[in-house]
Amino acid sequence: MRAKKLQDEYFMKLAINLAKKGLGCVNPNPPVGAVIVKDGEIIGKGYHKRYGGRHAEREALLDAKRKGHSTLGATLYVTLEPCDHYGKTPPCTDAIIESGIKRVVIGTLDPNPVSGNGLEKLKKNGIDVEIGILEKDVKELTKFFLKYITTGLPYVTLKYAATLDGMIADEDGNSKWITTELRKEVHRLRKTHSAILVGANTVIKDDPLLNVRFESSKTQLKNPKVVVLDKEGVTLNNPSFNIFRPEFSREVFVFTNTAKTNSTLALDHVRILNETEPTKVLQILGKMGVDSVLVEGGASIFSQFLQFSDEIYAFYATKTFGVGKSVFQNLSRKIEHSDINFSITSVKVSKSKRELMVVMKRCSPE
Amino acid sequence: MRAKKLQDEYFMKLAINLAKKGLGCVNPNPPVGAVIVKDGEIIGKGYHKRYGGRHAEREALLDAKRKGHSTLGATLYVTLEPCDHYGKTPPCTDAIIESGIKRVVIGTLDPNPVSGNGLEKLKKNGIDVEIGILEKDVKELTKFFLKYITTGLPYVTLKYAATLDGMIADEDGNSKWITTELRKEVHRLRKTHSAILVGANTVIKDDPLLNVRFESSKTQLKNPKVVVLDKEGVTLNNPSFNIFRPEFSREVFVFTNTAKTNSTLALDHVRILNETEPTKVLQILGKMGVDSVLVEGGASIFSQFLQFSDEIYAFYATKTFGVGKSVFQNLSRKIEHSDINFSITSVKVSKSKRELMVVMKRCSPE
Repeated sequence: MRAKKLQDEYFMKLAINLAKKGLGCVNPNPPVGAVIVKDGEIIGKGYHKRYGGRHAEREALLDAKRKGHSTLGATLYVTLEPCDHYGKTPPCTDAIIESGIKRVVIGTLDPNPVSGNGLEKLKKNGIDVEIGILEKDVKELTKFFLKYITTGLPYVTLKYAATLDGMIADEDGNSKWITTELRKEVHRLRKTHSAILVGANTVIKDDPLLNVRFESSKTQLKNPKVVVLDKEGVTLNNPSFNIFRPEFSREVFVFTNTAKTNSTLALDHVRILNETEPTKVLQILGKMGVDSVLVEGGASIFSQFLQFSDEIYAFYATKTFGVGKSVFQNLSRKIEHSDINFSITSVKVSKSKRELMVVMKRCSPE
Repeated sequence: MRAKKLQDEYFMKLAINLAKKGLGCVNPNPPVGAVIVKDGEIIGKGYHKRYGGRHAEREALLDAKRKGHSTLGATLYVTLEPCDHYGKTPPCTDAIIESGIKRVVIGTLDPNPVSGNGLEKLKKNGIDVEIGILEKDVKELTKFFLKYITTGLPYVTLKYAATLDGMIADEDGNSKWITTELRKEVHRLRKTHSAILVGANTVIKDDPLLNVRFESSKTQLKNPKVVVLDKEGVTLNNPSFNIFRPEFSREVFVFTNTAKTNSTLALDHVRILNETEPTKVLQILGKMGVDSVLVEGGASIFSQFLQFSDEIYAFYATKTFGVGKSVFQNLSRKIEHSDINFSITSVKVSKSKRELMVVMKRCSPE
């Protein structure tokens, strides 16, 4: 039994790693990976590559077929419960049943009612089904989808870079490059999220690109949408801000209270929406298919979104400003452990040992 | 050769661990440990137990003798170069030479000119000497002494507990127990330092005990001296503050600018000194034999002592205050990497994963 469990975990781990390749390309679908094993050997692998594309199960079946393997009597490892409905693609359950697979090992169940009851369908067709292998890891992999599909709201990640004394900008408002060595982690975060959210002040002060950049990457990466919270609509007067540059092939949403929408700005990829209340902004983004938002500042935005955040990526540099802009300085009240129960999930120190990344996750009451 | 080196490191590690038992009891002497090995077996162990007591080498020799072992031809492992002078005890070199030991392995050299040239004395007497085994670890163990003996100034450790946004107290000045789970680490720090330094505001606001407390400990531990920086001399008007309690058997130094010294306070263990300039305070403490100071706050004190600090123990709780007292809010200017080159030397996450300890050390330009 123990050997079987270890084997199941081994192949599920492979499925998870395959799924990760789809991160940032499949939203608001979940990243899913699948491995087909027969007589202890892998005969097919697949993952969900892009939104609207083939599901992982079908990719893996196709892979096995291409390689000339028979899937009769094989075991399928898949991170998420196979769907049983006609969406952009036909039900995966049908393909599995037709393939003659006799056992399906699932990481976690799909809470999406639209997906149908894949589990029951498989069982009814005489397939052995096992659920919950490496479930914690699979839930981490699928966290955007699991929140989005059950609440309609995007998963919210807060990301800030601060000094030891929690300053995200100095007295003069300079905030660029407080941390530099761990920037790769920032771009990894941007790559996986559907949208990046910033305040108007950040746009005005830093004029950031907010795109995905890796030194090593040669091809242009898909950039997340940009969301600007701009009560006064000041960014709308200046189409030359970097965030509006059309070559990044992304949508830009400006949430504002100003009535004169679209008056000065008439770019196809820019949408103006009349709302600035954080919960409503998140609801609207959810309705527009945004499953995940990376909140990048500044202090006013961090303070407004802290209580709605699911995860925090805090980068600290081993320097101090003394006086400056504190990361949550616009917070209306103290946030104690009992308010948002953040748990530290990982800590990373940069190579030079001068920077620190602390990842914290909100613990859902279980 | 490789086997020999591994063996040397093994026994030096033992000597280091022995030395650690003296931490907090030997100041301003260095903690030193010694192990005597013959034919691959340990025949004697010792460490410097208390200020004025026998040196580690003599303890180890005595231990071997007590157990009936001959030290003829043996190897001595000692963390610090043996002394060659008459201080509170006679020279260790003489004892080593008399013992017939033929090889001495030293962690690091003693920069104290008063100690004499133990190395040369041993060599002249035909003893093989090796230096620099696990030197990095030995220097860490001996850091207070190495700074104190070369500069006359105490080693300065800054310790603060803050929220994620760098607040050490909330709007109302409440600062107690921001972190609670890692308090054992705080008391471990207190135990090893010769003195704890705080500002008058901390005394007035929190009335702290500033003693060493461990839940597990049954015996009363030696408490470090208490140093209060009190420009206005306000603490002197109230002998009922906890820091003045005589049962802690410790000296209390109040550094103040007020002329009316000792007017209201006439306790034997309290000394009043007319100085409040940080560099001068440290010089005076050094002259009084204080080799290490743990700076415990508040914000004004942290800001004044940051540039003179050798190490920082920063405790962070996964909560935020938004508005409050920032740890370095009285800093007169930004401290960049180039000002104080702090390197992260260790990171510890509490069991509940809601608290973080970050240890940073100032890198000396080498």
